[in-house]
Amino acid sequence: MSSVPVPPRPATASTHPHQGDPVFDLHLGGKMQIAPTAPLVDDADLALAYTPGVALVCQAIAADPSMTQHYTWVPNTVAVVSDGTAVLGLGDIGPAAAMPVMEGKAVLFKQFGGVDAIPICLDTTDTEEIIATVARLAPSFGGINLEDISAPRCFEIEDRLKEMLDIPVFHDDQHGTAVVALAALKNSLRLTGREPGTTRVVISGAGAAGVAVAKILLEAGITDLAVTDRKGVLHSSRTDLTPVKKALAEMTADKTGRTGTLGEVLDGADVYIGVSGGTVPEEDVARMAPDSIIFGLANPMPEVHPDVARRYARIVATGRSDFPNQINNVLAFPGIFRGALDVHATSITEGMKLAAANALADLVGDDLSETQVIPSPFDPRVPGAVSSAVAEAARRDGVARR
Amino acid sequence: MSSVPVPPRPATASTHPHQGDPVFDLHLGGKMQIAPTAPLVDDADLALAYTPGVALVCQAIAADPSMTQHYTWVPNTVAVVSDGTAVLGLGDIGPAAAMPVMEGKAVLFKQFGGVDAIPICLDTTDTEEIIATVARLAPSFGGINLEDISAPRCFEIEDRLKEMLDIPVFHDDQHGTAVVALAALKNSLRLTGREPGTTRVVISGAGAAGVAVAKILLEAGITDLAVTDRKGVLHSSRTDLTPVKKALAEMTADKTGRTGTLGEVLDGADVYIGVSGGTVPEEDVARMAPDSIIFGLANPMPEVHPDVARRYARIVATGRSDFPNQINNVLAFPGIFRGALDVHATSITEGMKLAAANALADLVGDDLSETQVIPSPFDPRVPGAVSSAVAEAARRDGVARR
Repeated sequence: MSSVPVPPRPATASTHPHQGDPVFDLHLGGKMQIAPTAPLVDDADLALAYTPGVALVCQAIAADPSMTQHYTWVPNTVAVVSDGTAVLGLGDIGPAAAMPVMEGKAVLFKQFGGVDAIPICLDTTDTEEIIATVARLAPSFGGINLEDISAPRCFEIEDRLKEMLDIPVFHDDQHGTAVVALAALKNSLRLTGREPGTTRVVISGAGAAGVAVAKILLEAGITDLAVTDRKGVLHSSRTDLTPVKKALAEMTADKTGRTGTLGEVLDGADVYIGVSGGTVPEEDVARMAPDSIIFGLANPMPEVHPDVARRYARIVATGRSDFPNQINNVLAFPGIFRGALDVHATSITEGMKLAAANALADLVGDDLSETQVIPSPFDPRVPGAVSSAVAEAARRDGVARR
Repeated sequence: MSSVPVPPRPATASTHPHQGDPVFDLHLGGKMQIAPTAPLVDDADLALAYTPGVALVCQAIAADPSMTQHYTWVPNTVAVVSDGTAVLGLGDIGPAAAMPVMEGKAVLFKQFGGVDAIPICLDTTDTEEIIATVARLAPSFGGINLEDISAPRCFEIEDRLKEMLDIPVFHDDQHGTAVVALAALKNSLRLTGREPGTTRVVISGAGAAGVAVAKILLEAGITDLAVTDRKGVLHSSRTDLTPVKKALAEMTADKTGRTGTLGEVLDGADVYIGVSGGTVPEEDVARMAPDSIIFGLANPMPEVHPDVARRYARIVATGRSDFPNQINNVLAFPGIFRGALDVHATSITEGMKLAAANALADLVGDDLSETQVIPSPFDPRVPGAVSSAVAEAARRDGVARR
C-alpha cells in the first residue's frame, strides 16, 4: 500500500487559553488525524478510489460480505467507546470532557498495536441506549473497546454486546487491568516461591477492575480470594450486595468463609491488590504475611504508597511510571486487539486473556527481580509477544476466522 | 503541531481474491488510517498525552465545554454517516457494502478540505433509530455528513438532526449536488445571456438530489420550474404525491400551471437538469429552446448522452470526468465543511450554500466557455474559495461561533 502526503491541518489559533502549559500545548488541535493511504491527485486516482471504480468493490462486498476484510479499513479499526461516566479518577465528567482520554487511547492503539482506533464519546448514559447505539455502529468496526463506563452498567453493556456482535468487545478497564495484574502476580508468586493454590489474596474494590481481576485470578488457580468494598469483605451473609457483588462473593470469600473488614482480612494475607482508590492504613499493611506482595493500582495515589509498602512487602507494584513495576493497561490492550484482529476473531475469550498474561509474564524471563515483575510499557517486544499469544489462543478456542 | 511517524500497517495478505485488478489492488487494506499527531515514545510523552497529564485537559473541558474546540480533534472531525440504502447507482446494498464509498468520501474530505472524516455505516434503516444514533454520536464530531440514505427518509433525518444538534448537519447527496449544479447553471445562464427570472427549467427526478436542486434554484431566483417524476410533472392536482412531492409541487409547477409528461414540459424549456437515472428520448431533447442547457447528472449513464445532447444544446454538463463540465460534489462538500468548521458554525444555512455556489461560479471567471462552466475538481483554488465564502456567509447569517 502506497502512502500519500497528509495535507496540513488548518491553522490553529496561534494563542490558546492555556498557552505555555506543555500538556495543553501538546493537546492543541487534538492528538490524531486521518491519513489517506490511497492517492487522490488526479482523475485517474478518483476513478479508482472513488467513482466509478469503487462501485466494483461495493458490489463485491454486497455479493460476499467477507470481502470487507480485504477491501476496507474496517478489519483494522476499533471503536473506543465511552459515556464519560468513569474517566480516570475524575468520575462522571461527561462525553465531551472524556474525549482527550479516548484520543490518547486511540493513539496508544496505533503506536503500540498498529490498530486504527476511533474515539466515540456518547451523549447518553442509559444502558439500553448505549447497547443499541454500539450495535448499530458495528458494521463500521473490527472491534469495540469499551472505556471508562461506570459499574455496574459496564458489566451488562459488555455482556450484552458480546452476545449480539460477532466482533471482539472488550472493556479495557476490566480486562486490560486484569491481564496485566495477573502477569505481574504470576511473576511475583514465582519470585516468592508461592503456588496459586496456597496463596491468600485480598482485593479491595469491587468495581469494574476489581470484578475482572478477581475473575481472572480464579481462572489462574487462586482459590483463597477475598474481595472488599467500603463495608468490608463481600460474602453472601451480607444483605447489602448488588447482584454483581453477590455473584462475586459466591465465587470468592463464600468458599473460604472469610469475613470482616479490609484490615482484618489483610491479617496474614500474601497478596494485596488495590483497585479501590482508598487508602490502607500502615498498621493493616504491617499485618500481612512475610514476603508479601502489594499492588496499589489507584492512580495517581496508590492505596498504599510505595515508600510505605516497601517497609513490609517484598514486591510492590503501582500504576505509576515513576516507581518500579508499573501495571499499565497499555501492556495489554494493543497486543490483545492486534492478535484478535489478525485472526478476525469473533470475540476475546478467557483463554485469550490468560494467554496475554502468560506472554507478558514470560517476557520478563531471567530479568525477574523484586523491581521487575512486569515488562516496561516501552519494551518493544511486548506488542508482538502479546498479539502472537492471543492469536494462537483464539485459534485454540475456535473463535479465529482465519 | 509535530508529526510523528505512523507505524506500518500489519502485513496484509500477499494475495487477495481480486488480485491484479487495479481497483481492488488499490482498495487492499482500505483507503485510510489513523495518524497520531502527538509523539508517544517514552514515559515523558505518555505523561503529557495520556495519564496523568490528560486529566488536566479533561478537567478544563468539564469546567468549560468550549475548550473542546482547542484541545481535541473533534472540531476538525466529521462523521460520514450512511445506512447503505442509496449507494451510488447501486441502491440498497447495506452498510458493509457501502463502506468503500464512505471511506472514499472521507479521503476526499481530507485531501480537498483538510477535514478528518470517519466513515460510519449503520446497521439500521429505521428513521428514528438513525436519528437517535447520530444524535448520541454528536459529542465526538464537529459535523455530520449524511450520505447515500434513500428518500424520503433522508429529508426527515436531516431536518430532525439539524433541529436537535448545534453542529452542521449536511446531506451531501442533496446539497452538494445542488450547490455545484447551481454554480454551473449560473455560468451557463451568463454565457447564454439569460436571467433567472425568465428562464424555464425542468428537473427530472424528485428524490434527494431533485428536491435539493429545485429548492436552491428557487432561492437563486428561478421562477419557472417544473420537477418531474416517473409519472410526469409534479403538480397539486395529482393525487399520488407523497408529502415531500406535494410540497415541491406547490413551490414549482403549481406557480406556473405546467402539467404533462417530461417530454411535453421539455417543449421550449431552456434548461434540463436530470437527477433521475432515466433516459430522455432524443426527440424530446430536440424540442427544447435554442441555446438550451442540458445537465445529465446520473452516473455513470447521463439521462442524455453528451454526444446526443450536443446536437441540440449549447451547454452540456454531466457527472462524468471524461466529458467537459463535470458536476462533481467534491467541488462543494470539502470547502463547505472546511468553512463551517473554521468558524465553528452551528449549522449550514441556505446562505452558506448559495455563497459556495457563487464562489464556484466566480472561479471560472474569464475562462468561461461552453466547455467550462464549472472549475475542475482538481483546480487548487476551489477549496479555499469555497471555504472562505462559506465562513463569511456563516458570520453574515449569525451561525458562526468564532
